[in-house]
Amino acid sequence: MGSVEKMKAAKLREEIVAGNGLMDRRTLLRGALFSAGIAAAGVGFAQADDSVGADAPEWMKTPGSPFSAYGTPSKWQEKVQRIFTLGPGRAGTGVSRTPLHLLEGTITPGGLHFERHHNGVPDIDPGRHELFIHGMVKRPLAFSLDALMRYPMETHIHFVECAGNGGAFSQAQPPQITAGELNGLLSCSEWTGVRLSTLLAEAGVAKEGKWVIAEGADAAAMSRSIPLEKCMDDAMIALFQNGEAIRPEQGFPMRLLLPGFEGNMNVKWLRRLNVTDAPVDARDETSHYTELMPSGKARQFMFLQAAKSAIMKPSFGMTMKGPGLYEVSGLAWSGAGRISKVEVSADGGKTWALAMLNGPVLPKALTRFRLPWHWDGSPSILMSRATDETGGAQPTRAAWISQYAPGQGYHFNGIQSWGVEADGTVKNVYA
Amino acid sequence: MGSVEKMKAAKLREEIVAGNGLMDRRTLLRGALFSAGIAAAGVGFAQADDSVGADAPEWMKTPGSPFSAYGTPSKWQEKVQRIFTLGPGRAGTGVSRTPLHLLEGTITPGGLHFERHHNGVPDIDPGRHELFIHGMVKRPLAFSLDALMRYPMETHIHFVECAGNGGAFSQAQPPQITAGELNGLLSCSEWTGVRLSTLLAEAGVAKEGKWVIAEGADAAAMSRSIPLEKCMDDAMIALFQNGEAIRPEQGFPMRLLLPGFEGNMNVKWLRRLNVTDAPVDARDETSHYTELMPSGKARQFMFLQAAKSAIMKPSFGMTMKGPGLYEVSGLAWSGAGRISKVEVSADGGKTWALAMLNGPVLPKALTRFRLPWHWDGSPSILMSRATDETGGAQPTRAAWISQYAPGQGYHFNGIQSWGVEADGTVKNVYA
Repeated sequence: MGSVEKMKAAKLREEIVAGNGLMDRRTLLRGALFSAGIAAAGVGFAQADDSVGADAPEWMKTPGSPFSAYGTPSKWQEKVQRIFTLGPGRAGTGVSRTPLHLLEGTITPGGLHFERHHNGVPDIDPGRHELFIHGMVKRPLAFSLDALMRYPMETHIHFVECAGNGGAFSQAQPPQITAGELNGLLSCSEWTGVRLSTLLAEAGVAKEGKWVIAEGADAAAMSRSIPLEKCMDDAMIALFQNGEAIRPEQGFPMRLLLPGFEGNMNVKWLRRLNVTDAPVDARDETSHYTELMPSGKARQFMFLQAAKSAIMKPSFGMTMKGPGLYEVSGLAWSGAGRISKVEVSADGGKTWALAMLNGPVLPKALTRFRLPWHWDGSPSILMSRATDETGGAQPTRAAWISQYAPGQGYHFNGIQSWGVEADGTVKNVYA
Repeated sequence: MGSVEKMKAAKLREEIVAGNGLMDRRTLLRGALFSAGIAAAGVGFAQADDSVGADAPEWMKTPGSPFSAYGTPSKWQEKVQRIFTLGPGRAGTGVSRTPLHLLEGTITPGGLHFERHHNGVPDIDPGRHELFIHGMVKRPLAFSLDALMRYPMETHIHFVECAGNGGAFSQAQPPQITAGELNGLLSCSEWTGVRLSTLLAEAGVAKEGKWVIAEGADAAAMSRSIPLEKCMDDAMIALFQNGEAIRPEQGFPMRLLLPGFEGNMNVKWLRRLNVTDAPVDARDETSHYTELMPSGKARQFMFLQAAKSAIMKPSFGMTMKGPGLYEVSGLAWSGAGRISKVEVSADGGKTWALAMLNGPVLPKALTRFRLPWHWDGSPSILMSRATDETGGAQPTRAAWISQYAPGQGYHFNGIQSWGVEADGTVKNVYA
């Protein structure tokens, strides 16, 4: 080893903060890593020479495509699609997932937001749709879309996550599927709409009113009981998603948004809010979305999506290209508020390093975390562990499983693990 | 007037903070407005009765549409398109604009991001595209997309604005066109990519290197000279836009992102970064994108997009539906950093009220501002005036115009004004 190489190796060692090569999250800010870095390790780049750019590619030799009214992704990205369980073109009840492992950042483009429909996507004429607020109110009201557009609005970035997200982790053997298949009932958008509390104040909730029954205008009349307290807090009638009108699959022309609460309560194609003194025990809060306990009893109304995280890079389906420097990158989120820290382990949980959180860290929104990792090429187990500002943290998978009856798969928030093998393949492991 | 109405009128008066009905931005937080509010004024909503929801609409009576691999906006939104000057389907040089007046929040969906192409959109095979860094560097390098994907990334929300945005305000008469047509060479996305400084550090910039010539792989070989200082600051090689791979119209598979700098410098389809000791005087920094001064000389290399704002609601093409409460809503932005305040006037600039800024207020990103307004039905002139954290503020249109030769339309950041007429129509006015 020459003196330059020795210096680089020493620099690298200085940055290691946890077992098996995890590096200080500030390494990049200090510029310490890449001056000693990836290029020096000869990873996937080539030295160029002075004739660089002499050969113009053919796409520089002919005028490109014209302007378009509404753009679409590159044809080279056609495999970046929502992930179906039952195959596309199927209506009725089911899901499609966001391919989180193929995305970056935190915003989910509208076209890839996960879907959970109970009887397909209704085609609602926005000019004929109304939102009714009735029941235990002083003054029942009907709001057209035009009327709602007149109201003051708010814009917030929030995730929506299905209660069943991560349910595959309740299986006895770790399923060998992608991070998107495992975690993709989860998406994050910039939502704009009217605070529900504003509309409820106009209707005037009666003293007996304690719950609000939300009903969708889909063919399943999807209904859920929501505590009035949440409706008066940060609940929103969302009309816009990532700047444009909310997408049909997310509730066009309007949905209920309950930041941090399980997805199906964020009733899409929202049609009615019926103020009552008790929950209604709707089909989708009794037959589904309850937690079966070891006693055989089911726990109902577990609304909050707890602190959670998952590593997206590397993950199942990717192959590490030999020892060297990598970025470990993933998503963390909590329905209780902001993520306060994410720890990453590369030695199966023996030691942990703090990941860098890509700001702004927003409440009830996806947070991207990143950490440099020097992989030495030996079999390794990567894990991530999120903690939120309320102190909520992820249990081990085993601890999470032990709370429930076998096969109970709602509200999984256990620690997830990827096994990196010596040949660079990545597997889902229970560690 | 009954006692309840008197009380409501008194409440309303208490909230007025500037001339012609502008209300305190905290009005909504205090819940003071809508208890006295829009519904009480009978605006566009109907009282409902107990039979509410008895008539299920037809879309609840039949299963909806199936799941889809990549979603699209509702067919009811087909008019929400990019705005063409020359008609769709035209290739070559030109623009299409984001219909900002039809959007909400701050994120621009990928399909509606404005376009500025100099010779169409190239169809680049990402497997054959490389980014070269050469010139005054110790080690010329070529990066494949795979190699860049290996690097540590960052995610930031930033606007991109064409230098020509708002150029129509240099016309002698106020053009009667929408806020999107006036301001829509402006979009905002969540960008993810690799810091350029990381790659330049790997190549090793020679001491003489002071500028970087960026070249696109389009058929115009769009080229711009960029000060090295900016490249070593917050410049990014962007690979992802709103979570997914960057769209073809925004530079797939990679673009240069120079937060706050005029749009065309954010070279799309980025192919080469040539480190030099001087700017190259490329076609698009000499024949275009310069500021013609009264002396007949042109000012070159005015990179920064200064503090700016525009009211989107109400705006040209919308009609106010009689006196009453409205939300004034718009966008503010600055290439110099965060927006620190936006003031709104409803009396043509005589008095101003502070608008509410919808957080998080991010540097070099669109910021949505909002303010409640009680319109009394008389002719009114609405204006907005943004100030950024560096103290940069918008001049009047007249002051802006006076700096330049007639017709000079680059870098317009004057105060914009909407005239609201007694019949509720909204016109572009120079006030």
